[in-house]
Amino acid sequence: MLVVMQHSATEAEIETVCRVITDMGYTPVPMPGEQRTAIGLIGNDTRVDDTNLVGLPGVAQVIHVSKQYKQVSREWKPVSTVVSLAPGVDIGGGSIVVIAGPCSVESEEQILSAAHAVRAAGATALRGGAFKPRSSPYSFQGLGKAGLKLLALARQETGLPIVTEAMDEAGAELVAEYGDCIQIGARNMQNYSLLKAVGRLGKPVLLKRGMAATISDLLLSAEYILAEGNNQVVLCERGLRSFDTAARNLFDLNAIPIVQKLSHLPIIADPSHGTGFREYVSPMARAAVAAGADGLIVEMHPNPDRAKSDGAQSLFPEQFDRLMLDLRRIAAAIGRDMAQSGAPLKPTGG
Amino acid sequence: MLVVMQHSATEAEIETVCRVITDMGYTPVPMPGEQRTAIGLIGNDTRVDDTNLVGLPGVAQVIHVSKQYKQVSREWKPVSTVVSLAPGVDIGGGSIVVIAGPCSVESEEQILSAAHAVRAAGATALRGGAFKPRSSPYSFQGLGKAGLKLLALARQETGLPIVTEAMDEAGAELVAEYGDCIQIGARNMQNYSLLKAVGRLGKPVLLKRGMAATISDLLLSAEYILAEGNNQVVLCERGLRSFDTAARNLFDLNAIPIVQKLSHLPIIADPSHGTGFREYVSPMARAAVAAGADGLIVEMHPNPDRAKSDGAQSLFPEQFDRLMLDLRRIAAAIGRDMAQSGAPLKPTGG
Amino acid sequence: MLVVMQHSATEAEIETVCRVITDMGYTPVPMPGEQRTAIGLIGNDTRVDDTNLVGLPGVAQVIHVSKQYKQVSREWKPVSTVVSLAPGVDIGGGSIVVIAGPCSVESEEQILSAAHAVRAAGATALRGGAFKPRSSPYSFQGLGKAGLKLLALARQETGLPIVTEAMDEAGAELVAEYGDCIQIGARNMQNYSLLKAVGRLGKPVLLKRGMAATISDLLLSAEYILAEGNNQVVLCERGLRSFDTAARNLFDLNAIPIVQKLSHLPIIADPSHGTGFREYVSPMARAAVAAGADGLIVEMHPNPDRAKSDGAQSLFPEQFDRLMLDLRRIAAAIGRDMAQSGAPLKPTGG
Amino acid sequence: MLVVMQHSATEAEIETVCRVITDMGYTPVPMPGEQRTAIGLIGNDTRVDDTNLVGLPGVAQVIHVSKQYKQVSREWKPVSTVVSLAPGVDIGGGSIVVIAGPCSVESEEQILSAAHAVRAAGATALRGGAFKPRSSPYSFQGLGKAGLKLLALARQETGLPIVTEAMDEAGAELVAEYGDCIQIGARNMQNYSLLKAVGRLGKPVLLKRGMAATISDLLLSAEYILAEGNNQVVLCERGLRSFDTAARNLFDLNAIPIVQKLSHLPIIADPSHGTGFREYVSPMARAAVAAGADGLIVEMHPNPDRAKSDGAQSLFPEQFDRLMLDLRRIAAAIGRDMAQSGAPLKPTGG
Repeated sequence: MLVVMQHSATEAEIETVCRVITDMGYTPVPMPGEQRTAIGLIGNDTRVDDTNLVGLPGVAQVIHVSKQYKQVSREWKPVSTVVSLAPGVDIGGGSIVVIAGPCSVESEEQILSAAHAVRAAGATALRGGAFKPRSSPYSFQGLGKAGLKLLALARQETGLPIVTEAMDEAGAELVAEYGDCIQIGARNMQNYSLLKAVGRLGKPVLLKRGMAATISDLLLSAEYILAEGNNQVVLCERGLRSFDTAARNLFDLNAIPIVQKLSHLPIIADPSHGTGFREYVSPMARAAVAAGADGLIVEMHPNPDRAKSDGAQSLFPEQFDRLMLDLRRIAAAIGRDMAQSGAPLKPTGG
Repeated sequence: MLVVMQHSATEAEIETVCRVITDMGYTPVPMPGEQRTAIGLIGNDTRVDDTNLVGLPGVAQVIHVSKQYKQVSREWKPVSTVVSLAPGVDIGGGSIVVIAGPCSVESEEQILSAAHAVRAAGATALRGGAFKPRSSPYSFQGLGKAGLKLLALARQETGLPIVTEAMDEAGAELVAEYGDCIQIGARNMQNYSLLKAVGRLGKPVLLKRGMAATISDLLLSAEYILAEGNNQVVLCERGLRSFDTAARNLFDLNAIPIVQKLSHLPIIADPSHGTGFREYVSPMARAAVAAGADGLIVEMHPNPDRAKSDGAQSLFPEQFDRLMLDLRRIAAAIGRDMAQSGAPLKPTGG
Repeated sequence: MLVVMQHSATEAEIETVCRVITDMGYTPVPMPGEQRTAIGLIGNDTRVDDTNLVGLPGVAQVIHVSKQYKQVSREWKPVSTVVSLAPGVDIGGGSIVVIAGPCSVESEEQILSAAHAVRAAGATALRGGAFKPRSSPYSFQGLGKAGLKLLALARQETGLPIVTEAMDEAGAELVAEYGDCIQIGARNMQNYSLLKAVGRLGKPVLLKRGMAATISDLLLSAEYILAEGNNQVVLCERGLRSFDTAARNLFDLNAIPIVQKLSHLPIIADPSHGTGFREYVSPMARAAVAAGADGLIVEMHPNPDRAKSDGAQSLFPEQFDRLMLDLRRIAAAIGRDMAQSGAPLKPTGG
Repeated sequence: MLVVMQHSATEAEIETVCRVITDMGYTPVPMPGEQRTAIGLIGNDTRVDDTNLVGLPGVAQVIHVSKQYKQVSREWKPVSTVVSLAPGVDIGGGSIVVIAGPCSVESEEQILSAAHAVRAAGATALRGGAFKPRSSPYSFQGLGKAGLKLLALARQETGLPIVTEAMDEAGAELVAEYGDCIQIGARNMQNYSLLKAVGRLGKPVLLKRGMAATISDLLLSAEYILAEGNNQVVLCERGLRSFDTAARNLFDLNAIPIVQKLSHLPIIADPSHGTGFREYVSPMARAAVAAGADGLIVEMHPNPDRAKSDGAQSLFPEQFDRLMLDLRRIAAAIGRDMAQSGAPLKPTGG
C-alpha cells in the first residue's frame, strides 16, 4: 500500500500517517519526492483497511498494490481450475461447453421439448429457471420446487446436467438436491449470505457478474465461495447496465481474457442477457468463443413467441442448431473444440 | 403498450403481432402512420410481459406506457406516507430527520459514546452496523447479535431509535427484535427473497438504492415490500457506481425530487456513502436538505482514525455538531425544520 | 510514478523495467515486498508517458502519483481565481452569480423580454445561444451572427454581460467580438483545437464538463486554456450521461466541492441541463448553492411552450422569480450572498 | 410521436396538449386508456422538437416513434454502402479490411518500418497519427504536417492508403491533401462544425464513436456528414468509458450487429483503444471479426517499448503477424475473407 501525501503536507502530517500505520501493525517507509512525499507500507497488506488513512490531514490518495482477493487469483494457483458439472461435463478443461434451454421452466412438455432440442444440437447442459428474480413482484416468478422436479425429469430423459438459479439459502438447498450446478444471478452477486451458503453446500456454482460489478468485485464475490472451501466456481459475463437502450445490457466480452489472466477459474458468457435481442445472440455467441470463453449459456425456447419470460432474447430451435454449427467452426479456427454430451442418450429420448 | 413496427414491416407481420396480442388477452389497435405503423394495446396492461412481442419479425420497438409498479406510486396514493421509527420519530411528515452514528458497532464504549454525541447534536435516530456486507470475505464483518445488543443498550441510554442493516432473513428477524428499522443495503436492493421477508416482518424498512439501479428499479423493489402488506418503507439515495474515482460514488441528489414526484414514500440521502470522503459530506448533506430530502443518514465516529470500517467518510464529532447547525439554517431557508429527538434523555445520559 | 510488478515477475523482468525507466531519463528505485516488487521512479514525472511501461512483461500496474494538470491546480495557486465577466460581475469572489436566459436566441422580442425578466429577478448575466450544437442536423441550429447582434442589443438595454456558446474558431472570434464570455459546450470539452483558440483570444471562458468526463479530464481541458496564457476560466457541472432515463442527465453536484478542493478556478452548476425537466430545476439549483457553487446558469424562457429548443427544462418567468428569492435565503443560510447586477439599468429598461 | 398523459391529467390539460400539437402543424389523436390517455401525433414527425410538450402540465412522457436520423438508416437505403479508400480497398463490400500501424508518426524510419511490416502481414491500409488529441496539453501532440508527408511517403513505398486523424477544419484539409481517409476521433464525434467540414471535403471519413455516445448518437453524427452530400463514412466502435479500470475502455462489440441492422454504413472495430492493453487486443480482434465487423483498425509499433504514445496497447510486429493468421481462420469460419492489399508492392519495398 502506498499513501500519497499532498504537495503541501507538513512534516507533522507525514508523521501522523506514519504513526497510524505503525498502530495498525505495519512498517511505514516515507519516500520524499520532488513534488510530494509518498509513504510505503511494509508487511502483508492484503487485509489492510485503508479507511482510517484516507481521511487524515495531508493525505492525497491511498493506493493499493496488493489485491484484496487471494484464493481466486492465478498468482495463488497458476493452473486453471476445471469445474465438473457431471461425469464428462467439465468447464475450463479446454473444450467449450454450451449450457442451453429456456429462461423459465413452464411445463413438462416445454422443458422436455427444450432439453431434447438442445441435446440434439449438441449442448452439454440444460438451463431453466424454477426460481426467477423479476424486477416486478407481479411478474411470473417461476414454478419453484415443481420446476426443479421437471428439470430432474429432463435430466433423466436426456442425460444433460442441470444448471438452475437459487435466490436464497432454502432455494439453494433445493437446487443442490435436484440440480447439478447452482446459479447465482447478477442481482445476488453481492448477497454475501447466499454466497457463503452455496460455498458450504459444495456443489458447483455458476456466479454471474452483477450489472455494475467490476471484475475485481466479481472475483471478490467468488472469493467468498472459495473461502468456504468450495472451488467449483464458474464465472459468467452477462452484460452490464448501460446508458444505451439499443441493447438490454452492455456485453463486456473483454472480461473473458481479463478474468483468464487474473484468475484460474473458468469463465463463460451469456449472450442472451448480454444483448437482450434474439438477432444479436448468435453474432455475440460467436464473438465470445473467438475471444476464448470456456463456454456459453444461451436461452432457447421451443416457442419463444409464447415464452413466459425473456421470449425476445430466446432463440428458435432452428436458430440454435445453426449457432452450434457456427460455433464448431469458430472453435476449430482458434484450435479448440466443442464439448460433447457427457452421457449416452436414453433409447427413448428425442 | 405500443408496438412500433419497422418502416418495412409487411401486412402479414402486422397481422401476426395483432394475433399474438389477442392471444395474450388484449385488444390490438393498429395505427398506420406516414413512416410506419404502430399498434396500441387496449386493456389493463400493467402486467404485460412484452418479451414475446419484442422479437417478432417486423417489430422495431415495444413501448410501455403504464408503469410496472403500483402501490408505491403517487398516482395510487397521492398523500405522502409517514414512516414512524418510534413514537415521535416520523420520516416524511415534514420535519427533517437525521439518523447518525458509526459505520459499524465496534464496542460498548464506542457505540455509547457515538450515541450520546449524535443525540447531543440533535440527531433523532442512531445508525450502526452489526452485520456488515463487505466486498472482501477477509474484511471486518461486524459483531452480529452482540452488536445488536449494544445498539439496544445505546437506545436505552439515549432514547434514540435504532436503524441497522440485515443481510438475510435470519438477520432481519434479529434486527426486528432488537432494532426499530431494518436497513436493506445497496447490494441487496434486488435480493427479492429478503425484500419479501422484511415485508412480512412489518417493521419499518430503510431501502437503499442499488449502485446501478434506476429510480424505477428502486420503486419496484419497494413494491415487493408493499406487496407483502408493509408500507412503512423509507427510500435512500446513497450514490451510484461511477467512472470517476474522484469520489467513492456518484451521488444522485436529483433522485430526491424525482422520487417525491413518482412516489408517496419518503426519501432520505446518505452523503457519507454518496461521497466517500469526510470533507465532501457536509456540503452534500446541506445540498440534500436544500433539494428537499425528508432526512439524512450520516456516519459519525468518536475517533474516525481508528474506525474498523468507513473511517475516511466518517465525520469527527465536532464536524457533525457544526453540520447540524448548518442544516437547521438550510431547513429554515426552505420553510422546513429539523425533527426533534422523540424521547426525553435519561437523567444519566451524556 | 510506481510500477507494480506481478507476484511471479522474474529478476530479468524487473531489470528490464529499470532499464526502460533509465532510458526515459529517470531513476528507478526497486522496492521488494512480501507479495511483489514495486519500482518507484524518481524525477519530475509530471510528463511521463507510461505507455511503454504498462505493456512490459511482468508489469502488473503503473500508478501515477503526480497529477497531469499543473496550472489549474490549487497546489500550484492556492488562492481562488476570480473571473470577471464585466466590471462588477465577478465569479469566484464569494458572491453567487446567476446567469440566466433562454436556451436559444429566437427573436429580438424574445431575447429582450427574457433579458428584462431575468434582470428584474436579480440575475447578473444573460445566457442565450446563437450557435447551437444539436444532435440532429435537422434541428434548429441557432441564428448565428444575427443572434449575437440581438444579444449585444439586450446587453445595451439591460447592462447584463453576455455568455454564449462557440462551436468553432470562427464562431469564437465572433463571440469574443459581441459577447463577454465564450461558452464551450459539453460536446466540445475535448475539442483541443477550440480550447487552444479560446485560450489565445483571452476572453473569459465558461467550460462545461463533458458528458462522460472525469473531474480530472475537465481540469486537463481547462489546462489547455491556461497553457495559452488565459486563466479567466469558469468550470461548469451540467450533468453526466446516465443509464436512468428518469432525468436527462445525472447531475453530479459533488463535483462542486471536489473541484474547489483540487483547483483554484470557480465552478458553477447548470441545473437545467443537469435535470432536463423544469420541475427539478429549482430544487437542484437550491442544492447547488447549498453545496457551495460559485454560481448558476439557468434556462428561463418568456414562453417555454413555444421555445425552439429545451422548452421542457426552461423555467417560466414567475418560477425564476421565485427561485431567486429561494436562492437568496439559501445563500444567507451558508453565509454567502447573491451577486448584484453590475451596471445600473438604463432608464428605458424593463 | 406519442404524448402519454399522467393518470390524474385533467380534460383541460389534454386539450392544451392537443392545441400545442396543432400549433406545431400536426394532427393530435387522443387515445383514452384504462389507466391514462395517450395522444398520438400524425404527420411526418422526424423533425419534431418535443421540448415544448414535455413540460406541459399533465404530461407524463413523450415517446418518439420515428428516428431522428434519416439518410444513414437502412430503412432509407437497404443496400449496404461500400466505402472505397483507394482502388481495390473497399470497406463494407464483404471482405474484411485491416487498417494497421502506429498510434503516432514519430520518424521516417519508424513509419516506413511499420508500413512495410503491416503490409507484409496482410494489412490493407496504414494508420498513424500526425495530429494527436491528448488529454494533457503537455503530452506529445504529433508531428503535424511533417507527419502527413511521412505518411504519404509510406504510401508511395508500400501502396497502402492512409487513414489519419484531423482535429479541426484546417487539419482536415491537410489530411484530405496527403491522406486517403479522414479519421474523426472519439472526442470530436459531436464536434458538428468539424463533421460538416469533412462532409463538404468529400473524402472518405472514419468516424469513431464517442466515449459515452449511444449508437443513435453515432448515427446522428454520421448524418451530419451525409447531410453535406458525402456518404463515404465508415463507423468505428472503440470502447466506452467504464467504471472498471481493468481495461482502458469498455469495448462494446454488440455495436457491430446493432449498427448493421440500423444502418447501411460499414462498421469496423478498434481493439487497441477498446482494451488498452496489448494482451487483450488479439482475442478481442478475433471476437470483432466473429461478430461480423467489416474491418479492424489496430495499433502495431516496430518497437512498442519506445513508442511516444499508446505503447501499452500496440502489438509487436510478430504478434500482429500471428493475429492476421488467426483472423484469416476466423473469417473463413464465418464464410468471409480478408481483403487483399490493393496495389502491387513496389520492387524496392519491404
